[in-house]
Amino acid sequence: MESRSTVSLDSREDLSLAYTPGVARVCEAIAADPSMTRHYTWVPNVVAVVTDGTAVLGLGDIGPAAAMPVMEGKAVLFKQFGGVDAVPICLATTDVEEIIETVVRLAPSFGGINLEDISAPRCFEIERRLKELLDIPVFHDDQHGTAVVVLAALQSALRLTERSPEGTRVVIQGAGAAGVAVARILLEAGVRDLAVLDRQGVVHSSRLDLTPVKRQLAVQTADVFDRRGSLADVMAGADVYIGVSGGTVPEEIVASMADEAIIFGLANPNPEVHPDVAHRHARVVATGRSDFPNQINNVLAFPGIFRGAFDVGATAITEGMKLAAANALAELVGDDLSEDLIVPSPFDQRVGPAVSAAVSEAARADGVATR
Amino acid sequence: MESRSTVSLDSREDLSLAYTPGVARVCEAIAADPSMTRHYTWVPNVVAVVTDGTAVLGLGDIGPAAAMPVMEGKAVLFKQFGGVDAVPICLATTDVEEIIETVVRLAPSFGGINLEDISAPRCFEIERRLKELLDIPVFHDDQHGTAVVVLAALQSALRLTERSPEGTRVVIQGAGAAGVAVARILLEAGVRDLAVLDRQGVVHSSRLDLTPVKRQLAVQTADVFDRRGSLADVMAGADVYIGVSGGTVPEEIVASMADEAIIFGLANPNPEVHPDVAHRHARVVATGRSDFPNQINNVLAFPGIFRGAFDVGATAITEGMKLAAANALAELVGDDLSEDLIVPSPFDQRVGPAVSAAVSEAARADGVATR
Repeated sequence: MESRSTVSLDSREDLSLAYTPGVARVCEAIAADPSMTRHYTWVPNVVAVVTDGTAVLGLGDIGPAAAMPVMEGKAVLFKQFGGVDAVPICLATTDVEEIIETVVRLAPSFGGINLEDISAPRCFEIERRLKELLDIPVFHDDQHGTAVVVLAALQSALRLTERSPEGTRVVIQGAGAAGVAVARILLEAGVRDLAVLDRQGVVHSSRLDLTPVKRQLAVQTADVFDRRGSLADVMAGADVYIGVSGGTVPEEIVASMADEAIIFGLANPNPEVHPDVAHRHARVVATGRSDFPNQINNVLAFPGIFRGAFDVGATAITEGMKLAAANALAELVGDDLSEDLIVPSPFDQRVGPAVSAAVSEAARADGVATR
Repeated sequence: MESRSTVSLDSREDLSLAYTPGVARVCEAIAADPSMTRHYTWVPNVVAVVTDGTAVLGLGDIGPAAAMPVMEGKAVLFKQFGGVDAVPICLATTDVEEIIETVVRLAPSFGGINLEDISAPRCFEIERRLKELLDIPVFHDDQHGTAVVVLAALQSALRLTERSPEGTRVVIQGAGAAGVAVARILLEAGVRDLAVLDRQGVVHSSRLDLTPVKRQLAVQTADVFDRRGSLADVMAGADVYIGVSGGTVPEEIVASMADEAIIFGLANPNPEVHPDVAHRHARVVATGRSDFPNQINNVLAFPGIFRGAFDVGATAITEGMKLAAANALAELVGDDLSEDLIVPSPFDQRVGPAVSAAVSEAARADGVATR
């Protein structure tokens, strides 16, 4: 990637406007009225893509230097798919307090913060605290980008199999950043029969080994149904399997699911259920891979979400904005809906505008828009 | 300004290379050999332009938000004149320790740190400590960019008036970031009769009110000559006046200088000695303004200095690299030297390449080049 000027600088006059002495008048205008930042700087259109390198893709804790290619790639996608400028920031600290204070100190330089590849459960506290401390959008994409696209894909799959969220039994394998966020957005979208599993089995309030975030999730998912036990226990008869764990599901367990099952194996590069296996037992199959149909790709969500937030000067990204993004994605599929098309292609030119428009509208409805 | 991709992303294949899954292989390569950062990321070509907004242009402590236009302008000049990518970073803290620790945490994201518009004397400690802590170039442009261009201009003016550094009597008014750095580089370049003044008069070791940096300067400037007193005292018979204070020098004091005097009034927008006044008493006159001849403009130095440092993977910017940059600028004037041309124009296409080549060579000579 590169940085560059959006105006040409070809003469002494250009130089004296873009820099001293001309720039002083712009500084004075912002000093007198900070909202002028919007007109005179790139700040309201630029997102910091922040990581500490502790949970990079499937590679784990590889440190900030080795994480840079992912952040740089992400920055490029922000621009390409959302017109959002982005700066990759890889931090030389993994301490929660230090990460929080560093991002707070950086905040005047950015219009939004996209947290990326920070390991759970640290990522939950970092995001929660930053949302409290800052009045710009803070968004942990591993959580919410994934959750938005999964919800969109699930809405399509439920439509195809003529199910309602309320009547569908869902199993989520993996209770890290993505698993927790997917569970939360599904609950908000009306799913009531939901079992979330970590390596020790279903996250259930009878367990004594739960982190605060998992404990909260255990309470929320026990509201109506109260599944517990092993993966084999909860998969028998389940309608939907969502894998965000990186493990592998034995085929006999896959075979125990309900008719017309829906299987999303999202681990990269090896889905929890390989599509060849999944198709033997399910009607709708999705992965995180680009070489199979129905790729659950965050790039469908994060560029349009930030575009929509920035367009209305949103001070936060609310649950309503995320649901609106998911609905917009599901609606785009429209009449093209089929077993092999439950989310649009990232190269569908309608995606960015549709998501951003829905997000802007939801920001206004939720009272976080400033213009 | 904007960020953008340097490659096109037009297909699923492009996407799977630039981002997951393809990007994982690049991350693994860097995790195995951190020097691969150079081949696979923008890091070695990107400088952070860091401020706390405490000493912005002539505007003073206007805070990080209002400082952004200057940092953004600077970032644009880095690219235009040096091919160096740059990210403006305006920090929400003015605490010396917090600034230092924040920049250290950001360092894996950048190939160099350009400090900007941080007030004296805090800027001296911040730069010194960061140079110790980091193995990438750290450069406070208000100090060293100014010093390099002043030295280049002075070398030209001395050549024109047939003086040697050793035989020239210099007065510097202002002992902030620029004044201190100009004094230091002139001493390195051979000037021996040098008086530096702050608001209380000549910085002299008999004074009890000096900061550590000024005390050091008092010792250095007392080495051969030992000027003391007021501006009027030291200007009588002086060959060179360099103003970096923002004050005004009464014309009768200007008139007391030696024949063929050299006057650089660098305050913006109001030079300490207006060119109309200066020309009545001096042979060579320079300002910081673009609407008079001989503009002392940092843009002649910082883009080429970082370009030259980045080209050889320099771990620091040494005194030798700064002197080399000044010499390169002075040499570019060559046979065109006249009272109205003591430094090249920023739009002289030879400037960037000449400065960067000289800086790279000096980096190798000083043992800070890594390739």
